[in-house]
Amino acid sequence: MSSTRDIDALIELMAKLPGLGPRSARRAVLHLIRKRSLLLTPLADVMQIVAATARECLNCGNVGTTDICDICTSEKRANGELCVVEDVADLWAMERSGVFKGRYHVLGGTLSALDAVGPEDLRIPRLVDRVASEGIDEVILALNATIDGQTTAHYIADQLEGRARLTSLAQGVPIGGELDYLDDGTITAAMRARKAL
Amino acid sequence: MSSTRDIDALIELMAKLPGLGPRSARRAVLHLIRKRSLLLTPLADVMQIVAATARECLNCGNVGTTDICDICTSEKRANGELCVVEDVADLWAMERSGVFKGRYHVLGGTLSALDAVGPEDLRIPRLVDRVASEGIDEVILALNATIDGQTTAHYIADQLEGRARLTSLAQGVPIGGELDYLDDGTITAAMRARKAL
Ligand SMILES: [Zn+2]
Ligand SMILES: [Zn+2]
Repeated sequence: MSSTRDIDALIELMAKLPGLGPRSARRAVLHLIRKRSLLLTPLADVMQIVAATARECLNCGNVGTTDICDICTSEKRANGELCVVEDVADLWAMERSGVFKGRYHVLGGTLSALDAVGPEDLRIPRLVDRVASEGIDEVILALNATIDGQTTAHYIADQLEGRARLTSLAQGVPIGGELDYLDDGTITAAMRARKAL
Repeated sequence: MSSTRDIDALIELMAKLPGLGPRSARRAVLHLIRKRSLLLTPLADVMQIVAATARECLNCGNVGTTDICDICTSEKRANGELCVVEDVADLWAMERSGVFKGRYHVLGGTLSALDAVGPEDLRIPRLVDRVASEGIDEVILALNATIDGQTTAHYIADQLEGRARLTSLAQGVPIGGELDYLDDGTITAAMRARKAL
């Protein structure tokens, strides 16, 4: 490589991002260098800020820049509905659809015998606490329509039985599909037609 | 979006990179936040350094961190051979193959009637100067095997006729192919079998 050490280091780090390999990382770095003032400098600046400030919400697992996220601190969102998702990307997909006005609980994954992920590895104990302490009437299990997602939904339903009304997203989520891949309209339709477990 | 302003800004800037769209930018940002100390902080730091130091070599157009790049300042590379490429990514591809020991000249594109790119928009006048002033015996035209690439090669060959031996990469570069997509072996074979124009 004829580029100097720092440029090589930048390419190497960019290649570690999901969706980028060595070749696309090289293209991205050349693009960044060419768009220095429009892209590289602003990106470097905001990355420094996010590196210094980003954290997981201690209550729900959402990503934000405060110990308790904007959704958890908003009184408007305390409507008695709690939507359980696997991942922050799923929470973002729900928020883009704009259909849900309550709060979230991000599990941080699914139960998996294969990967030895048990309830204590997710935020399931904290979920049980929240249902009691936040006056939750309805828990919407918006987990992915995968085997692990549905296994996790059933486990949570067992834990919460009798403590809140349990619902899941309606048919409309494709079998084997992941929330973050769906368009907003599909999510909205599935949410509106949600059914009791 | 439930994420705060800085995280949104980071997603928006990442989505401007070639090869990333909004969805893959969101995935990349979540990955960065999760790997804060291993990936986000080092990436932010090296990006700041590259934003402050990266520049185009005033002599050849290569990207580096000095006004004149390492290849142009290395006496070892002054072997009388000059390899003309369209883009820095092509120079990097040549360097990875390790087959070429001379210097480079990066045009920064190709002549294009459609996009109104003329000789003065590329580094062609500077190329003519360099052939005279750097004691170049052989100019290897390593342009892409596209119509614009070959048009540009013929134009440069006309300009340099009688001033240096002109060669081009051997057959072996696929028709319509671009250097940066080729494996090192193909580039090495095409370079070794280069022929006089
Ligand atoms: Zn929260
Ligand atoms: Zn140079």
